[in-house]
Parts: sequence; C-alpha cells; structure tokens
Amino acid sequence: MTDKKKTMESIGEFGFIEKIRAGISAKNPSVVLGIGDDAAILKPSAGHELVFTTDMLVEGRHFDLKTISPWQLGAKTLAVNVSDCAAMGAKPTAAVVSLGVPKNFEVASLEAFYDGLNAWGAQFGVQIVGGDTVGSDHLVVNVALIGEVETGKALRRSGAKAGDAVFVTGTLGDSAAGLLALLHPSPKGKESEPLLVKRHLTPVPRFITGRYLSTRQVASSAIDLSDGLSSELHHLCEASGVGVEIHEEALPLSDPLLHFCGERKLDPVELALNGGEDYELLFTVPLTKISEVVQKLSEIGRASCRERV
Amino acid sequence: MTDKKKTMESIGEFGFIEKIRAGISAKNPSVVLGIGDDAAILKPSAGHELVFTTDMLVEGRHFDLKTISPWQLGAKTLAVNVSDCAAMGAKPTAAVVSLGVPKNFEVASLEAFYDGLNAWGAQFGVQIVGGDTVGSDHLVVNVALIGEVETGKALRRSGAKAGDAVFVTGTLGDSAAGLLALLHPSPKGKESEPLLVKRHLTPVPRFITGRYLSTRQVASSAIDLSDGLSSELHHLCEASGVGVEIHEEALPLSDPLLHFCGERKLDPVELALNGGEDYELLFTVPLTKISEVVQKLSEIGRASCRERV
Repeated sequence: MTDKKKTMESIGEFGFIEKIRAGISAKNPSVVLGIGDDAAILKPSAGHELVFTTDMLVEGRHFDLKTISPWQLGAKTLAVNVSDCAAMGAKPTAAVVSLGVPKNFEVASLEAFYDGLNAWGAQFGVQIVGGDTVGSDHLVVNVALIGEVETGKALRRSGAKAGDAVFVTGTLGDSAAGLLALLHPSPKGKESEPLLVKRHLTPVPRFITGRYLSTRQVASSAIDLSDGLSSELHHLCEASGVGVEIHEEALPLSDPLLHFCGERKLDPVELALNGGEDYELLFTVPLTKISEVVQKLSEIGRASCRERV
Repeated sequence: MTDKKKTMESIGEFGFIEKIRAGISAKNPSVVLGIGDDAAILKPSAGHELVFTTDMLVEGRHFDLKTISPWQLGAKTLAVNVSDCAAMGAKPTAAVVSLGVPKNFEVASLEAFYDGLNAWGAQFGVQIVGGDTVGSDHLVVNVALIGEVETGKALRRSGAKAGDAVFVTGTLGDSAAGLLALLHPSPKGKESEPLLVKRHLTPVPRFITGRYLSTRQVASSAIDLSDGLSSELHHLCEASGVGVEIHEEALPLSDPLLHFCGERKLDPVELALNGGEDYELLFTVPLTKISEVVQKLSEIGRASCRERV
C-alpha cells in the first residue's frame, strides 16, 4: 500500500500525530513544549499582553475541495487567524489545530494540509503546538491562535473618533472576484483571473502593517476585512460610536479586478464593498498622525459624529 | 414568534454574539478585553507560563443530542478542556468557543449550551472570551483553552522514573457504564445508573488535585484519562520511557459500577481499563514524596525499567 492510499482510519490518530509532529517546521522561541502532551507550554514575553482568537471552516460552507487544494486550505486557515491577530497589532506565536476528518480522507491530503499550515505559519512566526483529530462526515478545520502585543498597545475596534481618517490596506474585491472565477470559469479573462484566484485561495494577512500601527500607536482603531467592507465598517462604527462617510472613488481597486469586471459586466465597487474575504485591514488615524501613515495605504473616508437614533 | 422557535438563521450571527456576550457570567481577572473584537486581550501573570489546549466534539461521533442536553454538552466541552489543563497542573483562565450549527438549530438550545459552558467555566475560573459561529450539517463544538502555571512547574507525561508509584484520582469505568446505561436502558439498576450517567454527561475535571500536584511538585508525571486507562498509561510510559505494572485488585471501582456490572453481567475491570471518558488524573510519584499524597488517591501500580525492543 502506498502512502497516498493510506487513510486516517488505517494509520490511526496517534500515527497521524507522529507524522504531524515530525513535520513541524515553523518554530517560535516562546514555545517551551509543543505537540504531544495534554497541553502545550508557552513562555509569555515580559511587558506583553496576549491576544487569543479562533476560526472554524466547514467543508461545503467555507470551502470546496474541488476548488481549493488541501495545501491551500492549510495556508488559508492559518492566514484567517493571523489576520485577526494583525487587526489587534499583535505578532502571532502559537496555534492549536482541530480537524474533523472523514474516514476515507487520504493521509497524503492531510499531510498537504499541514504543509500549507506550516508554510504560512513559518511566514508569520507561528508554531503549531497542539490539536485534536476526530472523525466527521465533512472536513471541519478549527484553528485557535495566540499572539503577543506590547502591553496597552493592542488595536481595538472601539477607538475611532469623529474626524479620524479611514484607511484600508491593499485592494478590495479581489477575493470575491477570484471566487466567482473559480465557480464560473470563463474562456475569457485568463490573464486577470490567476491573481484574483490566488487572493481568494491563499490570502496574505497584513501582519507587518498591523505591527506598524500598534508599535507606533498610529491607528485609533482597526478591524480586519473578513466579511465585506460594508459589514466590517458597520462593526467598527458600532464599537466606536461614530459614523463614516466613504468616498466611493477612493476605494482601492486592482487592475485585474477592473479587467475581470469589465469582461463579465460586473460592478467592481459592489465587490469591493460586499465581497468579503479580502483579509485587508481597515483602520482609522487621527489627523495629527496622518503624516506617519505610509503613502501606499488608501484613505477611503472620514469618521463623523454619529446621529444616534 | 417566541424565542424558543428562533433559529440561528432567523437571528443571525451577530444577534447571537450579542446574546452570548450578555450571558457571560464567569469572569477571570486576567481578561483585559473579552468577546467582541478581532481577538481577546489577556494579561499573563508574572512568574507563570501558559498552557494551551483544544478539543473538538462532533455530533453523531462524540455525542448524541438524544442522550445529552445542550446544557450538559456545554458543561462537558468545557470540562474536557479543563481536564487537559488539570493534567498539566495549570489553572485555566480563558476559552474561545467555535460552533458549527445546523440552520434549524434552536437559539434556545444554543443559549442552554452557553449556560452549561458558563456554569462549568465559573466553577473553574474560566471566562469565555471569543469564538466563531458558522453553519454546518451537524453540530460541531470546538473549545480552545488557555491556563497558567508557575514557571517550570507544569506536569508533563515524560517525567516518570522506574520505582515511582502510579496513582489515579477518583474511580474508573463509571463514565463508560453511564454511556451503556444511556444507550441500553434497563428496567433494573435504576438506583446505580443516575450517578454513572452523570459521570458520563457532566464530568468534573480534577482541577484541585492537578494544582496540588504541580504547586507542591509532588508528581513526576501526569496525564488525564480521556481515553481508557490502558491507552493513557501507554502514552505516559512511551513519553517517560518506563514500563508500569498495574495491580488489578487496586483499581478504584465505585459501588454503582459494581452494582451495574453485577446486574448486567459485565466485567468492571474491563470498563475501568478500556472504558474512557473518566477525566480522572493518572500520575506518578517518587517514593520519597509518597507520604505527601493524600490518602484518598489510589496507588494502582509501580513504574519499572523498561525493556526497549
């Protein structure tokens, strides 16, 4: 029997744990004890607070194994959690990974999943330190992530003030267009689509920008764009008690998105506002600090006093 | 429409998050920011390390909503994670909870789940600080838990030495018998069964014993009994590089278990060794410290030098 045809059922949970443990490539110096005991042991850095977040992805709801490879799924699951960490301005350190696995799922696919997880983990300094592997009808993936941020410097959703400028990183709507390209492939648009698809399948969380904003205390509030801009902006406004006026013409749209929308007669602004899964950061900056914000970031609006109903 | 008939679909994720946030009763002083941002913020205690663990429970595999109530499921999910924490000698502080929820699942049942989670959380000082709620065909529950332990004092599986005495807390096999009683109800045995069923549905993790063992540095190794004693003892022996001789007559068996097995012609030792889900602690104690171990704990064997193959 080749390794490709081995299933979870045939090698058992403990055989699988050994495989995972042997494959851990990303290391973090705060990890005292990794995979293999009842719990991992971590040494927190002096002068830091912890951030703690979790995300669950369910086959058939959040992903389809016909359009995302196990490797990409591993990378994306890690990215989604690192993005939450980035929105707090924290550096991620360690993650635990729970998997619900159908019994005929191939071990080679699970190893590819962990390879993707470790590859994206290594990029951001995240070590996989534990987990749980159980049976399930559909593939279910849960990552819980710990990060560290200098005490008192975490970015919250609730700090925006009237008059603050509103920024986003990167470009918006690419991921939603990439998903459309995957679901409805077209003979046209072959040039613009790969980049959009990549943004959907293997997003890169804005870790460096998040750290910049927290360590220099530039942003008054921040949130990551896992849902669409409209929805996340609503959360930020609710938490901060402000309104925000968005300048539609200032929304950062990529060339591939504009080509894609041109070919398919779609509205790029609609995708930018409501598409979701961009994993960019949305944040606010007091006007006194606006000169510190690097020029590549896009100011898309201003916060205003809010008319409470 | 009454609240009882409300489903996740009808109130939406954010309505649900508000309900959860309002219901958080257990508080932990280390929590700087709880539910509602991209991540929670925690302040680690000076002189402590963190422990980090996770467990996933899948409907139809780990539980059946015909035999466990949502409240009990919440309590048990929390208990399973606290048990891992107890096996490290740590005090649990904060948890994040991911739920995969079928769309017709009633909000009242989800609230009951969170009530159970919070009730068991309050017992052990665990605050629910975040989570993720997504759609799923079956109910899937994942808890990730952080705890704290004095630096260098965490209990590991790997510290047992030849000659150490082997102990377990409580009694073994009750949970497996309780599961059998649930699956195959009998007109007989009505007196012994409720306690066994309770041990299966709402286990109480051995938090106090775990803390005793770590703070006084009494135990040389520890592991919790989520699988059966045989399986967990095997893990402890593998990690420590020792063998263990178990004295069958010393296995702690409860009166309800003995009655249950007598009535059903079952072997209680078989249930104690291989039943699983007792969530007791298995640990080893050097002979020089054995007088410090409280008398109610059961010494069940001795570790020996291991013949390596």
